[in-house]
Amino acid sequence: MVIGKNIPRVDAVDKVTGRARYTQDFAMPGLLRTRLVRSTVANGLVTSIDTEKAKAVPGVVAVFTCFDVPQHPFPTAGHPWSVDPKHQDISDRLLLNRRVRYYGDEVAVVVAKDEISAKRGAALVHIEYETYPPVFEPEDALAPEATPLHPEVRENNVIVKSSYKVGDGDFDDLARETDLVHVQGTYETQVVQHCHIELPVSRAYLEEGKIIIISSTQIPHIMRRVCAQALGCDIGKIRIIKPYIGGGFGNKQDVLYEPLNAWLVQQLQRPVEVFISREETFTSTRTRHAIRAHLDTYVRDDGRLIGRRYIGYANNGGYASHGHAISANCANEYRMLYQDEQMLEGTAYTIYTNRPAAGAMRGYGIPQACFIMESHMDDLAHRIHMDPVAFRRKNMMKLGYVDPGTTITCHSTKLDECLDIGMKYIGWTDKRTRYGHDRGVVRRGVGMAMFCYKTGVYPIALETATARMILNQDGSIQLQTGATEIGQGAATVFAQMTAETLGISVERIHVVQTQDTDTAPFDTGAYASRQSYVSGMAVKKTALSMKQKILAYCERLTTQPADTLDIRADAVVTKADGALVVSMEELAMNAMYSLSDTEHITANETAHCKDNTYSFGATFAEIEVDIALGKIKVIDIINVHDSGIIINPAMAAGQVHGGMSMGLGYVLGEDYIYDEQGKQLNDNLLYYKILTAMDHPNLHHAFAECNDPTAPYGNKSLGEPPTLTVAPAIRNALLHATGVAVNSLPLNPQRLVPAFDTLRKEMAHV
Amino acid sequence: MVIGKNIPRVDAVDKVTGRARYTQDFAMPGLLRTRLVRSTVANGLVTSIDTEKAKAVPGVVAVFTCFDVPQHPFPTAGHPWSVDPKHQDISDRLLLNRRVRYYGDEVAVVVAKDEISAKRGAALVHIEYETYPPVFEPEDALAPEATPLHPEVRENNVIVKSSYKVGDGDFDDLARETDLVHVQGTYETQVVQHCHIELPVSRAYLEEGKIIIISSTQIPHIMRRVCAQALGCDIGKIRIIKPYIGGGFGNKQDVLYEPLNAWLVQQLQRPVEVFISREETFTSTRTRHAIRAHLDTYVRDDGRLIGRRYIGYANNGGYASHGHAISANCANEYRMLYQDEQMLEGTAYTIYTNRPAAGAMRGYGIPQACFIMESHMDDLAHRIHMDPVAFRRKNMMKLGYVDPGTTITCHSTKLDECLDIGMKYIGWTDKRTRYGHDRGVVRRGVGMAMFCYKTGVYPIALETATARMILNQDGSIQLQTGATEIGQGAATVFAQMTAETLGISVERIHVVQTQDTDTAPFDTGAYASRQSYVSGMAVKKTALSMKQKILAYCERLTTQPADTLDIRADAVVTKADGALVVSMEELAMNAMYSLSDTEHITANETAHCKDNTYSFGATFAEIEVDIALGKIKVIDIINVHDSGIIINPAMAAGQVHGGMSMGLGYVLGEDYIYDEQGKQLNDNLLYYKILTAMDHPNLHHAFAECNDPTAPYGNKSLGEPPTLTVAPAIRNALLHATGVAVNSLPLNPQRLVPAFDTLRKEMAHV
Repeated sequence: MVIGKNIPRVDAVDKVTGRARYTQDFAMPGLLRTRLVRSTVANGLVTSIDTEKAKAVPGVVAVFTCFDVPQHPFPTAGHPWSVDPKHQDISDRLLLNRRVRYYGDEVAVVVAKDEISAKRGAALVHIEYETYPPVFEPEDALAPEATPLHPEVRENNVIVKSSYKVGDGDFDDLARETDLVHVQGTYETQVVQHCHIELPVSRAYLEEGKIIIISSTQIPHIMRRVCAQALGCDIGKIRIIKPYIGGGFGNKQDVLYEPLNAWLVQQLQRPVEVFISREETFTSTRTRHAIRAHLDTYVRDDGRLIGRRYIGYANNGGYASHGHAISANCANEYRMLYQDEQMLEGTAYTIYTNRPAAGAMRGYGIPQACFIMESHMDDLAHRIHMDPVAFRRKNMMKLGYVDPGTTITCHSTKLDECLDIGMKYIGWTDKRTRYGHDRGVVRRGVGMAMFCYKTGVYPIALETATARMILNQDGSIQLQTGATEIGQGAATVFAQMTAETLGISVERIHVVQTQDTDTAPFDTGAYASRQSYVSGMAVKKTALSMKQKILAYCERLTTQPADTLDIRADAVVTKADGALVVSMEELAMNAMYSLSDTEHITANETAHCKDNTYSFGATFAEIEVDIALGKIKVIDIINVHDSGIIINPAMAAGQVHGGMSMGLGYVLGEDYIYDEQGKQLNDNLLYYKILTAMDHPNLHHAFAECNDPTAPYGNKSLGEPPTLTVAPAIRNALLHATGVAVNSLPLNPQRLVPAFDTLRKEMAHV
Repeated sequence: MVIGKNIPRVDAVDKVTGRARYTQDFAMPGLLRTRLVRSTVANGLVTSIDTEKAKAVPGVVAVFTCFDVPQHPFPTAGHPWSVDPKHQDISDRLLLNRRVRYYGDEVAVVVAKDEISAKRGAALVHIEYETYPPVFEPEDALAPEATPLHPEVRENNVIVKSSYKVGDGDFDDLARETDLVHVQGTYETQVVQHCHIELPVSRAYLEEGKIIIISSTQIPHIMRRVCAQALGCDIGKIRIIKPYIGGGFGNKQDVLYEPLNAWLVQQLQRPVEVFISREETFTSTRTRHAIRAHLDTYVRDDGRLIGRRYIGYANNGGYASHGHAISANCANEYRMLYQDEQMLEGTAYTIYTNRPAAGAMRGYGIPQACFIMESHMDDLAHRIHMDPVAFRRKNMMKLGYVDPGTTITCHSTKLDECLDIGMKYIGWTDKRTRYGHDRGVVRRGVGMAMFCYKTGVYPIALETATARMILNQDGSIQLQTGATEIGQGAATVFAQMTAETLGISVERIHVVQTQDTDTAPFDTGAYASRQSYVSGMAVKKTALSMKQKILAYCERLTTQPADTLDIRADAVVTKADGALVVSMEELAMNAMYSLSDTEHITANETAHCKDNTYSFGATFAEIEVDIALGKIKVIDIINVHDSGIIINPAMAAGQVHGGMSMGLGYVLGEDYIYDEQGKQLNDNLLYYKILTAMDHPNLHHAFAECNDPTAPYGNKSLGEPPTLTVAPAIRNALLHATGVAVNSLPLNPQRLVPAFDTLRKEMAHV
């Protein structure tokens, strides 16, 4: 068994020794640098651009503006394409924009021999605008007088509105049922950013009749298709190479500036880098959607949910990017995790505004859903004086649940056990009783929140993956996937899966670390916590095919029937008694060099995944809050996960801790601050506060394992879930500690000090 | 039909724009440089090395000597490995040598931060030797008192001796048959070098737990295996990347300094380049074997060959490299091209001497065989007063010939037509009559020579190849081979083959230009003019498999039975009437993105080739010779080739002209000149004279095409043949012009002036 073992990361040595090569380590003689010229208005139309001064700067090679670029609208979302036009992503992008839709929108680009000349040139590009009143919030954007930001694709600023209804009857009729408690609430989440270490960067050049782009991306195969759409050229003429990457967290599940990079190379016929600074990454790549939701719930005093209504608005910023998928995902979570006795209604809006474009970020709408829903659940439990865990257990998804919206089925669940473990760890029963009655300036509370999370995107979108294996002469295996290692440990996990199924030692599985669309098998990439499940299916299928081919060759070599043979510990053995038939090395040398019968044994299999499964989990947190300062200190925190079988517990722990850290930043302080023109004021890591190592409490985790029957190795999603429930657990602990329900993020002093006004007055009275 | 069309080279734009990246274009931060310290004695033993001064040079990082390197003897020949130890190449190499075997042998290596420091360091390494009398010629090496150069593998200096005999009886008994003419002759060829433009170079680094070597090589997969043997590590731990290369001509069919490079990286854990200068390339890579042969022939005066005997000695220099294969190949050609009425005997020796190691070079022993044999054939024809062409026609290989030594069969031949075309072009009949009677100082003559040439190495060694194809979304194809483009046009030819079999336009076949052993299919590489035949079989098999998969997918997509469908002009059509079923692009988009049925269509097939076939051809030349100056001027020259179907006539013409140029250098002037210590005196392109563009006559060519039944596309070997018969054709034209038979190469003034002594005396008498 290699599954379940703490195999060291296959890329560990490369990364700790600095040998791992990232995009900017690929040196190219004569590489040109670029600087984008960005709009200084949030809503407007470029009327003229003067590039003469910029072009006169020594070192400047070219200046291109929105008037120069091709007019092929393209989408940027890291979604598999659809052959059905109705399901295709919204093509609302051009390489440079005359119609600017947020402060920082790209209008022109200066290409120069070095960065300094490019910056100097960019500073001298003079742009004239016709300006329109900016619409920053969904409400503004929906106002009748609001300018439609994308009239070419949408009449007004609603990207999509979608609704669902479960159960019969009219929701408002529930008001007449007198035994029901009616609770309403509005909850809202802020804009945050991924803050991956490696900034978005690509280097492109021409070779082999193609535009070749080395890019720090999660989705090389999708990027290839999008670049072709943007340039209006054949997909086969684009080649994407994804080397090691320094994090993505969903920002690199979008196609950012690679189409522009490709076009610049095409124009200049020289290698060009497009490097996006930290400041630009904040303002002009992607963010986590701010979502505001209005919830209406009828609950019986025994704790049973009777009917709920969700109306949510997602602020998508100036471009569609992942479009409605995130807001819809958020609304769906509200349906999936709890089931109501009578009915549930949901409506999700996704709205264009003059903000930076929101896109994919770890959790893909579910951190928002969890904050909204799990805050509300505590508000409900609080209102009916019920223990929040008991309240949730009563209403939560059970084994066998089939989601009416998606047909996704609960094939396995250890959610109950997750709750048990979390309660025990945090001392729930004791502390829920002891805490919550303090009247001092520093008060303690415990809170929790839970989630369900899909594994991949089926059936909402396509799930398909291919893996490829090659037998080396020494009996070792080359494993090549289109799935991408983005720091999450995919390569190591795939090596373990291959070793497990093939009976070859894991250290003899060599994983090709680069995804090169010219040679890598197709896979849509790293997102939706899909790879260990969907790409894992491809790895397993390929390993099984590989095993069959190896044993078939062994039959030709030894005349022993293949179906009597097995591979164990790097050798072909008899199934019956494990007797050595031939070592893998000897077999491989023959397969490669036999004069009578060579076969360069490889396998390549596509897994078209038509299933999905839920993972589950919960966060339990104990906090201390200073009423005077409005400051929360996290005393203890644990994430408990049911992600099926854990392939590599040490790496899984790393994922959990990283996600918890991201969740802590989300709840405690991260936020975008703008001026009234829409310019972000904290577009850097000095003013935008992510947690440092010193800011973290100790992070704890536990796994409640189960063997999911649909999964290749019993495994379910784990990459994104750890970040989902930290914020609501802490918000709920705050409610427990203080009785104050804070419904918008982050829970920083700026928000808490006014929220504690009443408390402070009470304290003054004492 | 794409076969037979002048498709532009797929790498043309990359090469003429300078975009094509060669080994040294792969920049690596912190790359260390090296300088080898070479022996200044031709035969000796290193007794001590002082590296202190070298280590003290600023910038020098390390100095390694023959006392430091691992003791894993390894072979260097670019041969497929054999699982049978009896057929494995001779492992007589170490990374650095204490026992030095030629002037220039590698004893130590200085590694430094830059080239200048490395050179400074190398100059300060002090080596003490115990010296032995050098043996430069086979005769010296075979003398009883000669030191055995490789006692670890051979008792004396005979690497291999091999003999064959065809027919019965005792050769010497032929002397008693009084109606036979007996002709003897000794012919000898000189040492020449490949003079590829790009010097041998590799850059190695560590990543992915492997030693990765970017190398200018013809044989990446073989190099991988040899490096592993040299380091005593698993083959799977070595990765070779072959980018564009600037020529090889067989020198890069040997593994040169890559094992040393790999070991240096392993020792220093930093990237290292090993770059071999032009001077070192001459002295310390590989050369074309000097072969001396003694021929004895009995011929009837009607022109029928009755019996022949060949005894040849190949000077292999200090290391086995390709060992006996070249000398044996030379002797085999003597058997194959002509058949004798009674008998034929051949004995080939390959001898270690204290010369630079001889190895593979375009033609692999056959340029030597052709000079030896075809000079002799003209001497025979001259002696019996028969037209040399008529004489050859009487004795040459006919359709259906089965070689008794190898079983290689003459499946197709247009040799007769080649001779017809050549005779007509050069005005043979007329000029053979008109010329040859001059008595002036400048005389003219016409001469010819012909050859047969195998296609690949079966059954002498393994022939196996795999190709891989991937369907892109736009209906274009990625073609990946382990076979290597080394300038000969392989990539273009494979694209044409793929297009032909798949029915997809050739411009939509994207050939992966880099062979990376981590992902490329296995293939032994570029040598033996094998790739268009053997790797072509793999391409065809893979294309057929690909077509089947595409049509099977089409059946699933359209329900039309696959066996009623065909692919033509980038679309699936009905076989019956060519009606459009679906474009390749639409099919590919569905295969990639269909929600119901995706298959990332790829194919990967191994062709284990168990056949071989002969190509044929001839050179006809007209020369003018200045008796006083000893100078030959080539007036007109044509090569006529039967290489089966010509896949790309324009590229084939390029091959022919290049080969003829090499042949002209061979006959007119190239030679190694040594001092008595064994130091080469002309180890540079100033003193070693290859022909410049100005030195060339116009080069003419013609093809006599035929469809070889064993070949994938009717094609036979063409890469090497053009260089084979230029030298003997010119030597024979000289014989015609002057009546003087010159039996050793090159035919330069130094050799011709003394050869014309008698003529000049005759002229003085007139």
